[in-house]
Amino acid sequence: METAVILIQCPDQPGIVAEVSDCIFRHGGNIVNSDQYTTDPYGGRFFMRVEFSFDDAKTDRERLEHDWSELGRRLEARWTLHYGARRLRMGVLVSKYDHCLVELLYRQRSRELDVEIPCVISNHPDVRPLAEQHGLPYVHIPFSAETHAESEQKVLEQVKDTTDFLVLARFMRILSEDFLNAYGKDVINIHHSFLPSFKGADPYRQAYNRGVKVIGATAHFATVDLDEGPIIEQVVERVSHKDNIAELKRKGRSLEKQALANAVFAYIEHRIIRYENKTVVFG
Amino acid sequence: METAVILIQCPDQPGIVAEVSDCIFRHGGNIVNSDQYTTDPYGGRFFMRVEFSFDDAKTDRERLEHDWSELGRRLEARWTLHYGARRLRMGVLVSKYDHCLVELLYRQRSRELDVEIPCVISNHPDVRPLAEQHGLPYVHIPFSAETHAESEQKVLEQVKDTTDFLVLARFMRILSEDFLNAYGKDVINIHHSFLPSFKGADPYRQAYNRGVKVIGATAHFATVDLDEGPIIEQVVERVSHKDNIAELKRKGRSLEKQALANAVFAYIEHRIIRYENKTVVFG
Amino acid sequence: METAVILIQCPDQPGIVAEVSDCIFRHGGNIVNSDQYTTDPYGGRFFMRVEFSFDDAKTDRERLEHDWSELGRRLEARWTLHYGARRLRMGVLVSKYDHCLVELLYRQRSRELDVEIPCVISNHPDVRPLAEQHGLPYVHIPFSAETHAESEQKVLEQVKDTTDFLVLARFMRILSEDFLNAYGKDVINIHHSFLPSFKGADPYRQAYNRGVKVIGATAHFATVDLDEGPIIEQVVERVSHKDNIAELKRKGRSLEKQALANAVFAYIEHRIIRYENKTVVFG
Amino acid sequence: METAVILIQCPDQPGIVAEVSDCIFRHGGNIVNSDQYTTDPYGGRFFMRVEFSFDDAKTDRERLEHDWSELGRRLEARWTLHYGARRLRMGVLVSKYDHCLVELLYRQRSRELDVEIPCVISNHPDVRPLAEQHGLPYVHIPFSAETHAESEQKVLEQVKDTTDFLVLARFMRILSEDFLNAYGKDVINIHHSFLPSFKGADPYRQAYNRGVKVIGATAHFATVDLDEGPIIEQVVERVSHKDNIAELKRKGRSLEKQALANAVFAYIEHRIIRYENKTVVFG
Repeated sequence: METAVILIQCPDQPGIVAEVSDCIFRHGGNIVNSDQYTTDPYGGRFFMRVEFSFDDAKTDRERLEHDWSELGRRLEARWTLHYGARRLRMGVLVSKYDHCLVELLYRQRSRELDVEIPCVISNHPDVRPLAEQHGLPYVHIPFSAETHAESEQKVLEQVKDTTDFLVLARFMRILSEDFLNAYGKDVINIHHSFLPSFKGADPYRQAYNRGVKVIGATAHFATVDLDEGPIIEQVVERVSHKDNIAELKRKGRSLEKQALANAVFAYIEHRIIRYENKTVVFG
Repeated sequence: METAVILIQCPDQPGIVAEVSDCIFRHGGNIVNSDQYTTDPYGGRFFMRVEFSFDDAKTDRERLEHDWSELGRRLEARWTLHYGARRLRMGVLVSKYDHCLVELLYRQRSRELDVEIPCVISNHPDVRPLAEQHGLPYVHIPFSAETHAESEQKVLEQVKDTTDFLVLARFMRILSEDFLNAYGKDVINIHHSFLPSFKGADPYRQAYNRGVKVIGATAHFATVDLDEGPIIEQVVERVSHKDNIAELKRKGRSLEKQALANAVFAYIEHRIIRYENKTVVFG
Repeated sequence: METAVILIQCPDQPGIVAEVSDCIFRHGGNIVNSDQYTTDPYGGRFFMRVEFSFDDAKTDRERLEHDWSELGRRLEARWTLHYGARRLRMGVLVSKYDHCLVELLYRQRSRELDVEIPCVISNHPDVRPLAEQHGLPYVHIPFSAETHAESEQKVLEQVKDTTDFLVLARFMRILSEDFLNAYGKDVINIHHSFLPSFKGADPYRQAYNRGVKVIGATAHFATVDLDEGPIIEQVVERVSHKDNIAELKRKGRSLEKQALANAVFAYIEHRIIRYENKTVVFG
Repeated sequence: METAVILIQCPDQPGIVAEVSDCIFRHGGNIVNSDQYTTDPYGGRFFMRVEFSFDDAKTDRERLEHDWSELGRRLEARWTLHYGARRLRMGVLVSKYDHCLVELLYRQRSRELDVEIPCVISNHPDVRPLAEQHGLPYVHIPFSAETHAESEQKVLEQVKDTTDFLVLARFMRILSEDFLNAYGKDVINIHHSFLPSFKGADPYRQAYNRGVKVIGATAHFATVDLDEGPIIEQVVERVSHKDNIAELKRKGRSLEKQALANAVFAYIEHRIIRYENKTVVFG
């Protein structure tokens, strides 16, 4: 038995669930999991994730996809179909702070994150041993203010065809609109604050100066508006006056690892649908 | 437009979702919300909650229910159908600790908990003013070891026909198997610990003595096995060595209120399905 | 035995703890609880809370306070001394959303918050029954754009001499700099967001629009900079795409109650020290 | 400047804080941090942690320790003195589940956990590469029911003189009373449940079967009573009916890592005092 996931979003209207489940049923599929959400039952937007199993020998994928296209057109839907047998390919960009990278690599090696990692790219040489210990190709691409566009081009060449999505695991350089457009696939970033608080540089210092009693980390899709992309996951922890900036950073590293790992986990399970500047993340 | 909720559980098999949504669709209903869960996609148990809207003028409820019965039989399902226009009637039993009662009454008055409260029953006279301030009938039924069965009988007479479910809002008496059977509907209890830790009496003292670093409260369905019923909701909070028993109790009261209110909220929205000794609580 | 609490802040220097504890010891006091904190052990600012018990019959309060003044001068300290026998008088201002008020009044009645409440002031008449059920004087002071200054003056007359601090329990009017200066004592506000995110109006709508995955509430000292005062307490909870604005508000009410109650609790136990735009809140 | 930490516990009595701080002051020390706690201000037990800095050139350590001994005797105290310049030596025992080990090694390498690790001991060969990548000696000591005592003896020889404390980072063998006595120093264990719930084997399966809505992990001192030792840290997370055992384990691994890392962090900062079957963990 194979499994597949369909993600769909469209204007809400009566009968969608019936049509979707019927279409899967007709092709011999068995719905294993199904989640749906409507922003507003009366004229809102409809989101659905359906995971189904099917017998590959008895299923005509071409016809399934064709029927699905028909249905999608009728519903004015945006949809994607993901076959479970295909592991996603995740490119990772990182600077010198490697705690998020360590988390991702460990979870990948232990099969908790079932992805391929075609390359680890960094503007710092320090990360090489770590990548190599995991048997992963390491690519060093220095960044500087002068060579930014050029460096981005090198990254693009590395990842454009070899990856399905990118993760910025504390990559301290801002990727340009040109890069994001040219790459054209999803880019997940971890920001070390509880967005929208403390955008920009040195958020733990900002948090310390403001005297907050809870800190957080935010995993979000990178967009051209820095720190403004759709939020996927946020993780928080209580702090107190006793926590100086170093201590906030220490606690924050745990949050960053957790938020990013959760986001990537949801992503590769095809549980995330983007819309407007938000996400639906099915549980 | 009216709304209704169907809760269903049955052996998993291909096509359930399609059949369910089709049945609703055929009667002119529009699925507003749908959640499902399967313990195991291959031979497990299937649970579903479907909330749908329908035009009462155009819908033949009798036929809908008839078709639904047919479907339920075919699927070997246990199912219930709840029309949204009908508010549930909640009976409340309480002893002298009234913080959970205050929470429920306030949320009911502010329409956050959209229930009727036909009566507040207590074995302590102190609660009377509170009930009366909310315009609710207060019934004083003393309990003692000798008169326990008799007192239970009085409670039963009060609630048997007038309520749809009971809430034990820190009711310090144990209801007997006879009572639970005779009542025959759901009874929600709040236990002041993070079950299964610290069953039985004085759980905050037990927690203090064990030196735990997190305490909790548990809302669960009352069953004949004390503190062993299906868990609906648990809420927790960090504590430290500084928290003596009085302080644990103070923090615990917040947890109890929260856990019980969440559980009742899920219950009246028909988001809970019981099976074995567990619950499915749809989000 | 009586108890007292001393709160002190001063430039850090060697020997402070020894001097403070010695001073208490010499007057026959027994330190029951002591907390201290230094922003930076080398040249930072020092904060201390000392709770001590003493035999009133054997203690010369005047001499104690005199010696303490001497010490405070030598240390260039700001300090306050609070005798435990004296209950603080808390004025409450509220608009029509009364959930925070209900929480405070219940906790006060059950002695969890050991304060006097000389008056409940509201610009809405709806709150009157609630205050009166608790046997508290209710004062209705309408606010409008035209009469704002005048209304503030009426509030001031009510609270200036009769209260030790004010709580804005969802009071939807902004108190002016003039008012705050004229009152001259602490004012605790609850803001219904996780500050500094979503300052200003309708924060739950802001949170919904931004698509955050965690919401919060913030209790802080009111200052002339709206929503910018020193944060005392923040409470947070996970949310998801399923939570519409009404649901965020529902969850938020729980957070607001909790954050405000915790802040008031810390305040009346004299566990808070303000400095710069922050707070030290001892555990 | 050097720093040192004194941990002390003794029967409560007036003047302790004054005496302690005076003793440090007289030897030229400056108290950098001080925490205290009394189980009961009237006849309870007193706990204190004092961190102070001193000029090694001007301080006579021998005299300091002598005076401190005198004071300890007078107060009937149990106390320990830790000089900050000396890094603790942590022995690690692990079986095949290596997520906690990975966490500890990474935090050690990044200096977040400032300890020496003289050896990593495992009854499984798989862990060797990981230890060696971190440049740490790996010792393989197989365990079986028949050779248990013998294997423990080998462990003891490895760690008795080379370590200051042991961490059982998911070591699936139970260390005997003989071993614990012979080792004679602290042993920190991570149990993969929210103790006292789900002691013993396969706690995630127990949690799943009970249908809890929150799971946890507990770091505690290992004692002869399995899973009954003093709790140092507990970390929890919400789960739902959707989480099967595999998912509970996945979420649990994060909790285990966090709880164990927090406990070790507190331990090496000398923030933990054991008493009875509990801990005081200063913040």
